[in-house]
Amino acid sequence: MPGPPSVKPSYAKPLALTLGEPAGIGPDITIAAWLKRRELNLPCFYLLGDEAAIARRAKTLGADIRIASVPSHEAAAAFADALPVVATGEIATAEPGRPDDSSAPAALASIRQAVSDVAEGRAAAVVTNPIAKSVLYRAGFRHPGHTEYLAEFAARNGRAPQPVMMLWSPSLAVVPVTIHLSLRDALAQLSSELIVSTVRIVAAELRAHFGIARPRIAISGLNPHAGEDGSLGHEEQTIVTPAIKLLRGEGIEARGPLPADTMFHDAARKTYDCAVCMYHDQALIPIKTLAFDDAVNVTLGLPFIRTSPDHGTAFDIAGSGKANPASLVAALELASRMADTKPA
Amino acid sequence: MPGPPSVKPSYAKPLALTLGEPAGIGPDITIAAWLKRRELNLPCFYLLGDEAAIARRAKTLGADIRIASVPSHEAAAAFADALPVVATGEIATAEPGRPDDSSAPAALASIRQAVSDVAEGRAAAVVTNPIAKSVLYRAGFRHPGHTEYLAEFAARNGRAPQPVMMLWSPSLAVVPVTIHLSLRDALAQLSSELIVSTVRIVAAELRAHFGIARPRIAISGLNPHAGEDGSLGHEEQTIVTPAIKLLRGEGIEARGPLPADTMFHDAARKTYDCAVCMYHDQALIPIKTLAFDDAVNVTLGLPFIRTSPDHGTAFDIAGSGKANPASLVAALELASRMADTKPA
Repeated sequence: MPGPPSVKPSYAKPLALTLGEPAGIGPDITIAAWLKRRELNLPCFYLLGDEAAIARRAKTLGADIRIASVPSHEAAAAFADALPVVATGEIATAEPGRPDDSSAPAALASIRQAVSDVAEGRAAAVVTNPIAKSVLYRAGFRHPGHTEYLAEFAARNGRAPQPVMMLWSPSLAVVPVTIHLSLRDALAQLSSELIVSTVRIVAAELRAHFGIARPRIAISGLNPHAGEDGSLGHEEQTIVTPAIKLLRGEGIEARGPLPADTMFHDAARKTYDCAVCMYHDQALIPIKTLAFDDAVNVTLGLPFIRTSPDHGTAFDIAGSGKANPASLVAALELASRMADTKPA
Repeated sequence: MPGPPSVKPSYAKPLALTLGEPAGIGPDITIAAWLKRRELNLPCFYLLGDEAAIARRAKTLGADIRIASVPSHEAAAAFADALPVVATGEIATAEPGRPDDSSAPAALASIRQAVSDVAEGRAAAVVTNPIAKSVLYRAGFRHPGHTEYLAEFAARNGRAPQPVMMLWSPSLAVVPVTIHLSLRDALAQLSSELIVSTVRIVAAELRAHFGIARPRIAISGLNPHAGEDGSLGHEEQTIVTPAIKLLRGEGIEARGPLPADTMFHDAARKTYDCAVCMYHDQALIPIKTLAFDDAVNVTLGLPFIRTSPDHGTAFDIAGSGKANPASLVAALELASRMADTKPA
């Protein structure tokens, strides 16, 4: 089923894109990304959602698009001429910026179905639109976040994975060892074990899905100047260095602890494939400084590929046409590339 | 005394440049900067040091330059045709990469004389070459660093200033509130008082030496997402926000606490004149990511202007010709600009 030459041929499995919070910008950026499918030679994807809700949002946005309500196995064929929407059975009624009682069931059904579509071979990878945790919590959702919910699915399949957050851009990939914790709690929870388990997953995924035979992993120190031989803190000596020694003993090319402030300039970035940092801002400041609009959030350590745009629901601009699809586009492209890559 | 048109006219007071550690790259980058005086239209400067030592280094580097041993009031006239060296009376004998007994006295005499040259109107500002703290400590130096030594001079003149470190580049200026402390100690020492006193100095200096009538100061939170309303830490509520309220009450345009990871991309940087951050890496990661080679270290809060290249002595490449003078050049240019700027 050949599409136009600028669209990926349909023999590649499509990507399963979740609805996200229906009152957020997920529908906006999905429509905007699909409209750029030829210009950017985007991989084929389908949205798991509610055709009527997407049609309403397209109208609000003044986007003259065709929507194809299809089963997932027909999505690839439809993609060139219409935005393929695969019904989840949940109707989304929320208006832009105003989540309602339909929001949580519609968002969650979409995530569940994306995971089973990949597990059962109907899709190549999961790409998730942003959800609103506070909306889900009010509806009884009991997981810390999107990623943990996805990990839970994986656990049900007989394995309890440690999900690892990577922020990826063409110029820099970073992984924070501790993530959504206060700085005080991050200090308390940082351990050699956590660094080791995180870096093992990073190294394995860089081989499996990025095709890098010997991933070079740069590991930051916790303190300024990586502790300056103990004069500015001891965690490098007690926590980070022992972890690196253990990892190197396993044959992983881990290097550090490096002073975080000199790890991210142009020349330094060429010396590694991924920077593993000790806490949230240490990892996210450099990548958001360099690649604010098109960084991709990748969840490593799951038994399926999952990427996501690196921004939230942006209720304030939902339905306005102002939402920038760049990060979703980058998430679709990266998911496709990861799915197509042969393990090194 | 007109020099070539590309060199600053000599009626501008020269800059007093210290020798720094004589075995480090200070002499190399001084010579390299002087050689670029016409190409870059550099402000006039003189080195406080030892003519013979500079002549030896020039020979090692294969740099065919004239050196003018002059008193400081003749430096400006000499600058176009020769590197002006003003004798400190201390002879520096150290070979490149090998500090010796002469290192500390030569480096310290140069700093002392630079400060008095500015205090007595012979120079417009102090620009310091890098020193080696460990070398000075072995010689009995009892100050935590270069900056504190300079502050001590100021205190002797009847005032005990709080020196504030700013890293400046054309695209970003940052100030860390806590500096060379372990992350644990930075958390313990962070206080509203320290934020307030730091930002007051930043605001006053941006008016006095950068000509900004209403400096816009962006202040980061301590925790990821600036604490996300207390769910990721409370220091924003207990420490940072009260400081900002007090500063705003004084008419200072301070804004925050802002999530540090979204403060430094292109669009965000246009909204403020200086970012004030809570700890070392939060401030230094973004500026060294963006401006690794030409960031300038500026000490605010002293009764004189002082800038410095943002790197160390680099003993391993001293005398090799590999040292990059970009940061010293930027430090000279900024010092001159600060000295020439009328208070706003």
